[in-house]
Amino acid sequence: MNHDAILDAIAFDGQGLVPAIAQQHDTGEVLMLAWMNRAAVAETLSKGRVCYFSRSRNRLWRKGESSGQAQRLVELRVDCDGDALLLLVDQQGVACHTGRRDCFFRAARDGALEEIAGPLVAPEALYGHD
Amino acid sequence: MNHDAILDAIAFDGQGLVPAIAQQHDTGEVLMLAWMNRAAVAETLSKGRVCYFSRSRNRLWRKGESSGQAQRLVELRVDCDGDALLLLVDQQGVACHTGRRDCFFRAARDGALEEIAGPLVAPEALYGHD
Repeated sequence: MNHDAILDAIAFDGQGLVPAIAQQHDTGEVLMLAWMNRAAVAETLSKGRVCYFSRSRNRLWRKGESSGQAQRLVELRVDCDGDALLLLVDQQGVACHTGRRDCFFRAARDGALEEIAGPLVAPEALYGHD
Repeated sequence: MNHDAILDAIAFDGQGLVPAIAQQHDTGEVLMLAWMNRAAVAETLSKGRVCYFSRSRNRLWRKGESSGQAQRLVELRVDCDGDALLLLVDQQGVACHTGRRDCFFRAARDGALEEIAGPLVAPEALYGHD
């Protein structure tokens, strides 16, 4: 399927990127925020598996390629200005590289950040192989 | 209350900004994505009313200052890398400047973007006054 009409509606920034929020489709949990370029969005729409653009590695990053914790795309939504995406996904296992279900596990309370969720998997178990 | 410990944990980008996701605290709806600078985060934590940084107007933007559709902060969370925020909020009325409840009202379906939610309020009603 041709996705040009969707891709053309996205306002990629000066670096060719757009922020993408991943939300678990059924529970509503906000799992993470990452970045996509045009190729990442195109691949995600074509394959149904979420692919981001890693700014640190400067390349496409198929979520779960190292950790096995992939995201299946349920629906991609574009915001009013076209400069943010919301990905409804089905997250396999944990979204965060720390082994936590989501990346937003630190809450501002009483002037400090408090950890409100612990790892479900040890990071070494996620990244220890190959 | 002093919020320096929280502010120092946030990795603002080269423009001094960090993306912030606003999520309705009780329903889990992802309402919008906007940007904050250090002053916006500090004010939001101090006052309990969400303040963003408007990139187009290049100034602090107290959500609802024109539209009346303010966001009360329930909890601010920081992600694993410190470069994204999740704001649990109580949204008064609608979050989107188009009069829709949230900004993500366009879904990718069959190669095109389909509107999946309509305005609850006319934009003129939101911005018509002063």
